[in-house]
Amino acid sequence: MKSNINKHRSIRKYRPTPIPEEVLKECLLAASKASTCGNMQLYSLVVTRDEELRRQLAPCHFNQPMLENAPCLVTVCADIHRFSMWCRQRDAEPAYDNFAWFVNASTDALLAAENFCVEAEAQGLGICILGTTLYTARRISEILQLPDGVVPLTTIVVGYPDESPALTDRLPLDAVVHYDRYQEYTAAEIDELWAEKEMSEETRRLLDENQLPNLAQIFTERRYVRKDNLAISESYMELLREKGFFNNK
Amino acid sequence: MKSNINKHRSIRKYRPTPIPEEVLKECLLAASKASTCGNMQLYSLVVTRDEELRRQLAPCHFNQPMLENAPCLVTVCADIHRFSMWCRQRDAEPAYDNFAWFVNASTDALLAAENFCVEAEAQGLGICILGTTLYTARRISEILQLPDGVVPLTTIVVGYPDESPALTDRLPLDAVVHYDRYQEYTAAEIDELWAEKEMSEETRRLLDENQLPNLAQIFTERRYVRKDNLAISESYMELLREKGFFNNK
Repeated sequence: MKSNINKHRSIRKYRPTPIPEEVLKECLLAASKASTCGNMQLYSLVVTRDEELRRQLAPCHFNQPMLENAPCLVTVCADIHRFSMWCRQRDAEPAYDNFAWFVNASTDALLAAENFCVEAEAQGLGICILGTTLYTARRISEILQLPDGVVPLTTIVVGYPDESPALTDRLPLDAVVHYDRYQEYTAAEIDELWAEKEMSEETRRLLDENQLPNLAQIFTERRYVRKDNLAISESYMELLREKGFFNNK
Repeated sequence: MKSNINKHRSIRKYRPTPIPEEVLKECLLAASKASTCGNMQLYSLVVTRDEELRRQLAPCHFNQPMLENAPCLVTVCADIHRFSMWCRQRDAEPAYDNFAWFVNASTDALLAAENFCVEAEAQGLGICILGTTLYTARRISEILQLPDGVVPLTTIVVGYPDESPALTDRLPLDAVVHYDRYQEYTAAEIDELWAEKEMSEETRRLLDENQLPNLAQIFTERRYVRKDNLAISESYMELLREKGFFNNK
């Protein structure tokens, strides 16, 4: 591999050392180089270093311990606001307050976010992506004062690592890659793709801890359960409506 | 910058030279290293090299000339199908057929997609991201035989470049970065952020060609007009419903 991507692992313990301005800028610049729909750059990166604001954000991410030390949180937002504001100043009527442009803006935002992460790791920083952002998107929007047309999608914790965890395991490459067309899985293939993960030490530990018969049930009974999934779907959709992503469907 | 990200530009002319298996594999492996929600890897990459299938996909991308020569298309899909299938085989009831998991799966898919692009460029390949994917997502789903729980999000054209375009211009970094909180733009700031773009040769050429008074109107009157945006919003949302991303809201 010619990039440093194969060394990625999520970092969950950070030194409080601040990130030098020029290093942070390189990461942000890398983000801005990502492909973007029509070169419209429909995203914003909110870089929160202020201690008081980080303290306010911590409960939005379930007070995970890494939030105490990591010097910087980057909230990645889909943003049709800035572009629409420009249009209005030019007597052009923007028509991006709809679902298609939530998806386009999210695409822009997430491609940029991954560039940020790749560059951060190249600079010796560690990162962790916080999926909790969806759960508490409304509260995050309030704290960060996001205007209409802007919603948080995910959050990057970034700082100097204070741990050196093993590389994360992944399913075999065959699991996620299909050649030519989607190749439907047989039941036996599914068993095979998950076999290594299911037999790992880590899985054994989790099953003991949770008193459940298999790894899949850890996901469906403990980590991501129907009730929460539905509540998040509803609250996030509601936020999209409030922020004007369904003004005209 | 320590990665090769700052050299990114979209490539729209390709040599038909096939991508060596091992190079393609490195790019796919890089994709699989991206952060993923709960390590669930809720995405699929459909790598289409077959000429007949590429011919079928070309109209989905408005027959852009690059599609004729580029040897490979990667359709990036949100995928809750594979994970749900595994759950069902383990007497675990998956509950990912809802909007929150469309967003989670999209996040996984797009982070992986950008890793693919960064590694492809590190390997001397060129890429172009096709936003047309949303417009024709249903037809793409048919051609690629995507099952329930799988929807296309974007498409990466990839191959060896047959042109060497200038780096794409971007808004000044200040446009997309906010420190601590979202810092609302003043009208004057918006003017300033777009000034360079509006005064460029390229913009002058576009205005002449389109007989319009400013760049913003090129976007709102020509490129991405309300009627199309609404039609795409509706058809994409309808596809999400059909594919089971709103089974229980």
